[in-house]
Amino acid sequence: MDLNSDVGESFGNWRMPDEQMVEVVSSANIACGFHAGDPLTIRSTAAKAAQNGVAIGAHVGYRDLPGFGRRFIDYDLKELSADVLYQLGALEAMARAAGSRISYVKPHGALYNTIVTHQDQAKAVIDTIAEYNSELPVLLLPGGYALDYAREQGLRGVAEAFADRAYNPDGSLTSRRQEGSVLHNVDQVVENMLRLAQDGVLIAHDGTRIETEAESICTHGDTQGSVEMARAVREALIAAGIEIRSFAA
Amino acid sequence: MDLNSDVGESFGNWRMPDEQMVEVVSSANIACGFHAGDPLTIRSTAAKAAQNGVAIGAHVGYRDLPGFGRRFIDYDLKELSADVLYQLGALEAMARAAGSRISYVKPHGALYNTIVTHQDQAKAVIDTIAEYNSELPVLLLPGGYALDYAREQGLRGVAEAFADRAYNPDGSLTSRRQEGSVLHNVDQVVENMLRLAQDGVLIAHDGTRIETEAESICTHGDTQGSVEMARAVREALIAAGIEIRSFAA
Amino acid sequence: MDLNSDVGESFGNWRMPDEQMVEVVSSANIACGFHAGDPLTIRSTAAKAAQNGVAIGAHVGYRDLPGFGRRFIDYDLKELSADVLYQLGALEAMARAAGSRISYVKPHGALYNTIVTHQDQAKAVIDTIAEYNSELPVLLLPGGYALDYAREQGLRGVAEAFADRAYNPDGSLTSRRQEGSVLHNVDQVVENMLRLAQDGVLIAHDGTRIETEAESICTHGDTQGSVEMARAVREALIAAGIEIRSFAA
Amino acid sequence: MDLNSDVGESFGNWRMPDEQMVEVVSSANIACGFHAGDPLTIRSTAAKAAQNGVAIGAHVGYRDLPGFGRRFIDYDLKELSADVLYQLGALEAMARAAGSRISYVKPHGALYNTIVTHQDQAKAVIDTIAEYNSELPVLLLPGGYALDYAREQGLRGVAEAFADRAYNPDGSLTSRRQEGSVLHNVDQVVENMLRLAQDGVLIAHDGTRIETEAESICTHGDTQGSVEMARAVREALIAAGIEIRSFAA
Repeated sequence: MDLNSDVGESFGNWRMPDEQMVEVVSSANIACGFHAGDPLTIRSTAAKAAQNGVAIGAHVGYRDLPGFGRRFIDYDLKELSADVLYQLGALEAMARAAGSRISYVKPHGALYNTIVTHQDQAKAVIDTIAEYNSELPVLLLPGGYALDYAREQGLRGVAEAFADRAYNPDGSLTSRRQEGSVLHNVDQVVENMLRLAQDGVLIAHDGTRIETEAESICTHGDTQGSVEMARAVREALIAAGIEIRSFAA
Repeated sequence: MDLNSDVGESFGNWRMPDEQMVEVVSSANIACGFHAGDPLTIRSTAAKAAQNGVAIGAHVGYRDLPGFGRRFIDYDLKELSADVLYQLGALEAMARAAGSRISYVKPHGALYNTIVTHQDQAKAVIDTIAEYNSELPVLLLPGGYALDYAREQGLRGVAEAFADRAYNPDGSLTSRRQEGSVLHNVDQVVENMLRLAQDGVLIAHDGTRIETEAESICTHGDTQGSVEMARAVREALIAAGIEIRSFAA
Repeated sequence: MDLNSDVGESFGNWRMPDEQMVEVVSSANIACGFHAGDPLTIRSTAAKAAQNGVAIGAHVGYRDLPGFGRRFIDYDLKELSADVLYQLGALEAMARAAGSRISYVKPHGALYNTIVTHQDQAKAVIDTIAEYNSELPVLLLPGGYALDYAREQGLRGVAEAFADRAYNPDGSLTSRRQEGSVLHNVDQVVENMLRLAQDGVLIAHDGTRIETEAESICTHGDTQGSVEMARAVREALIAAGIEIRSFAA
Repeated sequence: MDLNSDVGESFGNWRMPDEQMVEVVSSANIACGFHAGDPLTIRSTAAKAAQNGVAIGAHVGYRDLPGFGRRFIDYDLKELSADVLYQLGALEAMARAAGSRISYVKPHGALYNTIVTHQDQAKAVIDTIAEYNSELPVLLLPGGYALDYAREQGLRGVAEAFADRAYNPDGSLTSRRQEGSVLHNVDQVVENMLRLAQDGVLIAHDGTRIETEAESICTHGDTQGSVEMARAVREALIAAGIEIRSFAA
């Protein structure tokens, strides 16, 4: 099983406590400078990932530092494609300087959510990745258009599950506005992720068993508590004899 | 002899009339997004250079869109290095997507001028280029620290002359604040550049002959008149039997 | 009748040819720095408007320099409100330094178009203006939600017509993708605007007469030809005895 | 005695723990968006200051989010003036919306340090403030050119002392590169600031007594420990019968 997390999200004097996450995960979604990440942060994060044998993923996002890439932007599609390609190249140079390379791509924030249904933006992103390097897996939400389209184009689409989120019976995430949508109980999260790794099953908030193709667990590292949750998941999986390894390794 | 010019300097809705210059020069200094150049502009400029057999140079600059990279910034050196590396990677992806690659590097604006004398910034820039790809020539002002340091580090340092600028007897450029520092007479510019290409000599504003190692002529393309001047230089050189070819070809 | 135009849209080294428009119009929509306009450009444009007795309007937009404010952004509403207030204050300081003040507000680009139908963003913008200064007229598209809501809130909503655009029989603009949607024939534009000023009527592309409440004519100044068109409209109106005067004067 | 601190330095998703400082100080140096501070953060910080009866100061800085305004930029002076005026206006709108107003100005970071000796930038900043509102005090380093020039121009120049910094015998700050330059011992800091408030004296690192005209104590709030230090200074001053009140009140 793979553990992935968003890292490299500091910007200049504004620091995110995500450096430790590079030691916990097997796949590091590194910000590429458009929604977060200044070049020095990106470089040092890529270097740390390389040193720890962690796969480097390009966490490409909308060009929107004030919004942290979390606001839908109605891009011209050629501009979106060029913005994605620019970010891939920038991160690639950082990864190569650290003796590594980009091993996968994960769209960030509003872009990630938008291409679940927005076919034009999904195509622009996936086509750009395919043109850049058709060997790169793309980490996406299961069940969305982007995942289907990526596979149609011959890319490896990898689905992920979210450690700290509650699920609806149909496999979608419950709305953040709904109470209980974000899980804070470490034991419950660990239990859920063990079940996922062992049986390929998630349990919806009403108890429904959901079979999922998730090959990766997304954990968050933006608060101290979340780093500890990720570490607990990692240790529980290892204790259960499950290897923590990137899908891109 | 090589002709180089700054291109790819549009940004979003703000267009620079530099597209035509890609057809005139043999080396295109393409903005990398930090002082100018949005990703789509960079991509299309790189594609046009590739189609025209023009060498693609990374025109790396300070991160300063409002100042167009023309204001000295007292960078932390690790940040400067990371900013340069980021720009190299971003442009490389665009060049590769067009079937080409970065063939040389030219620092832009205030960075170009600063590293003539600022040893720490010069080292940060040159070391970063050397680490990225030690085969890349660096296009610089003759006589400066950066050129010496680049050569000490085993990089190929290429000196350039400026078609439309007046020179002091010691080979330095006359100050822009001095009257007559920018040449507007096309015939005079053409004559100067022919002499440079044939004899390796520039004539200072007081008539002094200056021997120069310049292997490239820098022309500007930011006004309509300047594109025509560059074209006149190109045609005069060709008429005189001089091949227009990038130093990086 | 009022003539308005977007001005102050230069940014650093990227110049827009909009300075001349300040001499042609009676109302200057001055960019406030979020989609266009660096502070020095804004300041000098405000000063020129003040010198020419032209009303200063705050052309507030999304925070999106790369997209020139022309891409819809799904803003958090509190952030949108704060972004609008920030822009109003910044321009106000420039107007006051020139001995003038903000006399009206016109949303720009995607924000202008969005609030025709997007009720939440419309409310956020209008409420912010009302809170800032409830005496300020707001220049908007006739028939949209924002105009209605502004009037409900006690603001003066002013409708405008577009000199160089073709209209559908229902009073909406024909799509830019449709041939003939942008008018280039100066005589036709002048005739249309004279009719508008004299009879309060626009003629749709199929000949339908449309009664309109437009109190202002929007002209564009982003190309040389468009400045001349605006000048022709101005002179024709004056020749017909119609006073050119800002609705905000 | 006045206590001042830099606040409003969050930017979008990147939060600074400076909100609590607004409750501790009598003068709040609020970032204006050019080195830090998004509009919503600025607005809510200004509102909190207004609610707490804290004086609102414009913390104007270089336009440099990636460098947090801490890197010298060799500005064109007209651009620097316009950038300062823009920031003043933006913050003024936020202060007015909260029922307050800008009560003083404090340059930030590299701009603050630069104008101690850089006469042209000092004049550009001070002249702009004087033109904006000649009643505004300017908070500056004692002994510098900017303070002298501000007074020459008829502005009230207010000098400040730094609670957590060591001093040289000549009254200058010891270099941050020197060991012991930043004081972490709360008792020592409290003792120093009590002495300052009661006797107008600072003690240099070698024991020399330095008479100072400082009317304000600058405390920092960017770490949890620093907030507690500021609180300790506040409480000690109050316990000693010293009123905490802004110089601008």
